[in-house]
Amino acid sequence: MPSSSLPATRHVPIALGDRSYRITIGSRLWHDPAVWEGLPSAAAAVIVSNPTVAGLYATEMHNSLAPHFDRILLLELPDGEAHKDWPSLNSIFERLLSEGCDRRTMLFALGGGVVGDIAGFAAATYMRGIPLVQVPTTLLAQVDSSVGGKTAINHALGKNMIGAFYQPLRVVCNLDTLSTLSDRELCAGLAEVIKYGPIADIEFLDWVEANLDALLARDPQALAFAVQRCCEIKASIVSSDERESGLRAILNFGHTFGHAIEAGLGYGQWLHGEAVGCGMVLASELSVRLGLMPAEFATRIRRLCERARLPVRAPDLGDERYLELMRIDKKSEDGALRFVLVDSLGHAVLRPVPDDVVRETLMFHRH
Amino acid sequence: MPSSSLPATRHVPIALGDRSYRITIGSRLWHDPAVWEGLPSAAAAVIVSNPTVAGLYATEMHNSLAPHFDRILLLELPDGEAHKDWPSLNSIFERLLSEGCDRRTMLFALGGGVVGDIAGFAAATYMRGIPLVQVPTTLLAQVDSSVGGKTAINHALGKNMIGAFYQPLRVVCNLDTLSTLSDRELCAGLAEVIKYGPIADIEFLDWVEANLDALLARDPQALAFAVQRCCEIKASIVSSDERESGLRAILNFGHTFGHAIEAGLGYGQWLHGEAVGCGMVLASELSVRLGLMPAEFATRIRRLCERARLPVRAPDLGDERYLELMRIDKKSEDGALRFVLVDSLGHAVLRPVPDDVVRETLMFHRH
Repeated sequence: MPSSSLPATRHVPIALGDRSYRITIGSRLWHDPAVWEGLPSAAAAVIVSNPTVAGLYATEMHNSLAPHFDRILLLELPDGEAHKDWPSLNSIFERLLSEGCDRRTMLFALGGGVVGDIAGFAAATYMRGIPLVQVPTTLLAQVDSSVGGKTAINHALGKNMIGAFYQPLRVVCNLDTLSTLSDRELCAGLAEVIKYGPIADIEFLDWVEANLDALLARDPQALAFAVQRCCEIKASIVSSDERESGLRAILNFGHTFGHAIEAGLGYGQWLHGEAVGCGMVLASELSVRLGLMPAEFATRIRRLCERARLPVRAPDLGDERYLELMRIDKKSEDGALRFVLVDSLGHAVLRPVPDDVVRETLMFHRH
Repeated sequence: MPSSSLPATRHVPIALGDRSYRITIGSRLWHDPAVWEGLPSAAAAVIVSNPTVAGLYATEMHNSLAPHFDRILLLELPDGEAHKDWPSLNSIFERLLSEGCDRRTMLFALGGGVVGDIAGFAAATYMRGIPLVQVPTTLLAQVDSSVGGKTAINHALGKNMIGAFYQPLRVVCNLDTLSTLSDRELCAGLAEVIKYGPIADIEFLDWVEANLDALLARDPQALAFAVQRCCEIKASIVSSDERESGLRAILNFGHTFGHAIEAGLGYGQWLHGEAVGCGMVLASELSVRLGLMPAEFATRIRRLCERARLPVRAPDLGDERYLELMRIDKKSEDGALRFVLVDSLGHAVLRPVPDDVVRETLMFHRH
């Protein structure tokens, strides 16, 4: 790739008062000392990663951080959603304590959504909070999970049930890492990219449709724009509702069905993005059924997910099992299921939905 | 006790912007419906307690809450500092999830410091945060641990190492519960009462000296004033430094030695307040040794602790073990021990102290 084709570095600010920070998006970022400038001083940095990502990038990351810290530790968590749990979280605490890490220790989450969520929650709770920098390496983490301060671990009874809102000091999206993603992971990330159109920006949906082939081919300029635009949309939503008292829930389009699929099949069977892609198709069908969304628009979302090689047929967990799993969803209130539905192009709402309508949607979807 | 001698209900506000709340202190509070007025609506309340406290007060508490909630659950954690750990915390998550508790569920921490710290941390992290009300039943919890939003569990390697700053919506101090405390627990609570004088309010220290016998005799008016004044001092400190970036650390006077004693002997051997009492004596000796505190003032603190029946001789853990345990303290930076020291009457500072001076103090203290 000739350097003239490298996307220019860009910054997306997240306005959250004294917790404001910026997302830096670009290529060869770790070669640029400026990327770490302005962080508070700390003697020790801890890179939290997994064996796959660490094998590819830990050395480069270490070298990039070396001028800024006296001591740099690397901690590898087992890979995959099935390990987003207390034992992984506790392994971080054990290491930090046994290494004598104090509360100025800076934690760098180098990896995808799983690493970011666990490392973020560890930073939120070790000594009641230590500085955190998100360094997402997957498309899904760059466009969604590393931004906005949601951290969590899973519980056998429900996804992301134990966690905290905890903002990083900075998010550094190195686009180069997208080149080593498997096709499956790239496509899973595209599900979250697709998501932003229906809920918030219909022009961006047009753009994704027009540029999906370029995204699948990992065109650097297309990826750079997609990451930037998704981060801009997410920044705007998070800035107005950091702790999800209302608006922020729309980012969960497709996630109610999606989380049920992930928990129902067993964490890690489907990637999070795959479950979200299928979940968006289901939530669109639900929106149509409730008279909120024109049928053609649901078809448009389904076709786009298909083109992005995402699964669009829900696994058969049994309808009652779906309802049971979804009732644990964090958006539920007083036992009533609530879904993010799209009620006009580029606009989403959070709505209680009667169980029967959910059952009908699942039945209809299967036939 | 004739009702004319009941202390009047009083309120102490804690100013923390949109996280502001009030501490209500009084007698027969649970008989007054006003005490729960103004809390956000929620279908379910969960009372987290322990078998001892629940045996005494769960029914009364349940009856008090019954008009406000459709469903009230009671959850008993095993008693004592040794159980301020992940299994206890997880038992709360298990129960909340299995009962289908949503994120509007209100959690009431009914008990002492251990219950308040675990239940507070559970509220901070269940579904990334649910509403919390602290209902402290011990003197220690009423004057200190229930106020200010520190929540945590212990780790085998250090006390309160995993936690969050998470403010309750309200703190309700029912003075009547102090009548069922054991003498040992009452005295442990007095350690935190004594603490506030040397660090912040020398007039209050005079008052405690003059009224210690009344406090030991559980005089309701004396206890009411002590709880109120301690909460006022804590409120003022917490309001100016919620997340302990500076000033708030002075509340940890006696706690660096104290936490080492607790962890070194095994959690629960000494009550937290007992360890803090002894820790204040040691920290005073350190302050004298560094030329900050007049020797007579250290003697005054030690005598007051003795009168409050607190242990003033440190257990012999071995000096190096003390240093090792204290190096994990959250106030440490870059491996250097930092102590809260009193540098003039009613004024405390956080200071790095060379290991040798700590060793000398421990040696001197034993002889």
